[in-house]
Amino acid sequence: MKRFLTLAGAAYFFAASAVADLRATGDLGVVIERETGSVQVINTSTPKMLSRIEGLGDLSHASVVFSRDQRYAYVFGRDGGLSKIDLLQDKIEKRVVQAGNSIGGAISQDGKVIAVSNYTPGGVKLFDAETLEQLAEIPAVYGDDNQLSKVVGLVDAPGGRFVCSLFEGNEIWLIDAKNPRQPVVKKFKDIGKQPYDALLTPDGHFYAAGLFGEKGLALLDLWQPELGVKHILDDYGKDDEQLPVYKMPHLEGWTVAGELLFVPAIGLHEVLVIDKHDWELVKRIPVVGQPVFVMSRPDGRQVWVNFAFPDNQTVQVIDVKDFNVVKTLQPGKAVLHMEFSPRGEAVWMAVRDEDRVMVYDTESFNETARLPAQKPSGIFFSNRANQLGL
Amino acid sequence: MKRFLTLAGAAYFFAASAVADLRATGDLGVVIERETGSVQVINTSTPKMLSRIEGLGDLSHASVVFSRDQRYAYVFGRDGGLSKIDLLQDKIEKRVVQAGNSIGGAISQDGKVIAVSNYTPGGVKLFDAETLEQLAEIPAVYGDDNQLSKVVGLVDAPGGRFVCSLFEGNEIWLIDAKNPRQPVVKKFKDIGKQPYDALLTPDGHFYAAGLFGEKGLALLDLWQPELGVKHILDDYGKDDEQLPVYKMPHLEGWTVAGELLFVPAIGLHEVLVIDKHDWELVKRIPVVGQPVFVMSRPDGRQVWVNFAFPDNQTVQVIDVKDFNVVKTLQPGKAVLHMEFSPRGEAVWMAVRDEDRVMVYDTESFNETARLPAQKPSGIFFSNRANQLGL
Repeated sequence: MKRFLTLAGAAYFFAASAVADLRATGDLGVVIERETGSVQVINTSTPKMLSRIEGLGDLSHASVVFSRDQRYAYVFGRDGGLSKIDLLQDKIEKRVVQAGNSIGGAISQDGKVIAVSNYTPGGVKLFDAETLEQLAEIPAVYGDDNQLSKVVGLVDAPGGRFVCSLFEGNEIWLIDAKNPRQPVVKKFKDIGKQPYDALLTPDGHFYAAGLFGEKGLALLDLWQPELGVKHILDDYGKDDEQLPVYKMPHLEGWTVAGELLFVPAIGLHEVLVIDKHDWELVKRIPVVGQPVFVMSRPDGRQVWVNFAFPDNQTVQVIDVKDFNVVKTLQPGKAVLHMEFSPRGEAVWMAVRDEDRVMVYDTESFNETARLPAQKPSGIFFSNRANQLGL
Repeated sequence: MKRFLTLAGAAYFFAASAVADLRATGDLGVVIERETGSVQVINTSTPKMLSRIEGLGDLSHASVVFSRDQRYAYVFGRDGGLSKIDLLQDKIEKRVVQAGNSIGGAISQDGKVIAVSNYTPGGVKLFDAETLEQLAEIPAVYGDDNQLSKVVGLVDAPGGRFVCSLFEGNEIWLIDAKNPRQPVVKKFKDIGKQPYDALLTPDGHFYAAGLFGEKGLALLDLWQPELGVKHILDDYGKDDEQLPVYKMPHLEGWTVAGELLFVPAIGLHEVLVIDKHDWELVKRIPVVGQPVFVMSRPDGRQVWVNFAFPDNQTVQVIDVKDFNVVKTLQPGKAVLHMEFSPRGEAVWMAVRDEDRVMVYDTESFNETARLPAQKPSGIFFSNRANQLGL
């Protein structure tokens, strides 16, 4: 009878722990810990760390997308690793090394397909989001000799499509992946020299690729792709004299706030404001350093800016109403990334050299939490599952 | 020993069922079944019904908001009932009847406070989102005799605020609920006769209240509330001759697509297009009946429209690119409500008199699923947790 009670107790324990473990996925996220190849699973409501998951390989320049149910985080590593993390069970569900050198990825509008953009071998691969089975390989061939190009600026777009750019190929590709085993590629050639990164406007309407080999950007209107690619912002971009490669600002550092784009100036202590209607520069806002990420609060009222070394301990906040800097914060050494809560009441910052994540209230600018992290370099919240073009 | 095995089996069963029950909350939703006072919990990826929850009282004109983690649905019933449904455990977590007659509610930007707007007694009540403990009661007093007004058009706004309108009071109230036990109310008086409903633009910038007692709308710029309330769209609204109360279109049937508002014309077979910059009418689009809900696909490329009786078996789709009706669908008798998936690849429709929910692909316009439901009247997906002004 003692054994009976013990076992009933065991059964009760299982049931009770099942209830205690119930976890929703709407307010989860991951923090990238680059040097240790690990990620933290975090809860943004509490806020707190739920777990640390290791063994994710080279996480330099890592990016993350989320499954439609916000249960799984797909982590794209620099080493070609594609890892599917289960946020409910705090473990790696599946991991494949799908290329030698990879630069990012995207998840299809319906959540069923993961796309990865690779440097080596240059191309795009499509995977089943559930199993990580490879569905298609699209080599980034260009030119008369069928050379392979590095692929950059890969995003999902409405209509079950992906868009990407070929760095050496000088092309933009519009990939219809509604049948992901037989994707159909529409190629736009000679779009400008060496597209190095790109963005999709949050409404999925425009795809803009930054050019490394010349000034300006290449713009594709996805509502009217038949019109081809246009060249915009002729004065924006590379100046050979002063700009080493590593200072080219990634376009993921651009932001759209209402009808305006806020963009880091290259090599200058300025944020540029661009009108989305005509893609013309309307304003230069002086800031404390060379901007890296220029990020809009979800409601578009504020834009938060972090900076390159030696100003990377500082964050500034611009009020979109009148383009003034309304706050300067000093979160600590090496603020590398920021992420807003879905409705914008809070912003999280990865402060690498202080080994911590900081949380601020965006109205009062007060610090509301700090969490320990190992050299955090990126923060990604699960509500990204609901957004286009990430 | 037999008992031992049986109990070990029982323990195993508990553990196994706990794993099998793991459910994420990013792709959940509820379908309102008005006549039976029940809701279905549904999964939008599969798609399928997960459960039916009964005992929710009078669900006519019911609306729903979701907790920050997308685990709980708060259902506002007409009878003053406020029900908190646990989407992970398929049950009512808590239910209070907080007024005699209620018209809707909202959840604060940080997810901590539920606000309910009441007709009887007229006012707003604030509740703790976790416990449903009442935190504050704000009677809608107006005029010299401190009469009580019905409260309508309650929405959440950035900065921990709520906004609502007083139907008999002719006022708009901006409620600072950062300290929800001691909310601070800023009152805008004489804003126009009998505001009957309102909307917040998705960026949280503008609050617009429709007027029952006169033509036009009252507009409050939440970025500059000190400028007071303006009167806009002087030709839009009530015409005593032709419009009984029940035909006044609710402003939740309005939609913002990029820089344009799409609005049901009153008493006409038209959708009106309004420029958000100057609030002027720029286009009238002929449609098949009198529009009820005019809803933008999340990327703003399409607008879907359903209609009042006798045209409520029809849905039309407008292409925002050129304002043409590009598709006319016949989902069945009494299409009462529509809800888009977060990234817009699918739309769900409550087809009341066919006792079913229909799902369509928004690119091909093909039907992709139909689910049985008891006189469905409304559909709400959990990603609403991430949106302002709902």
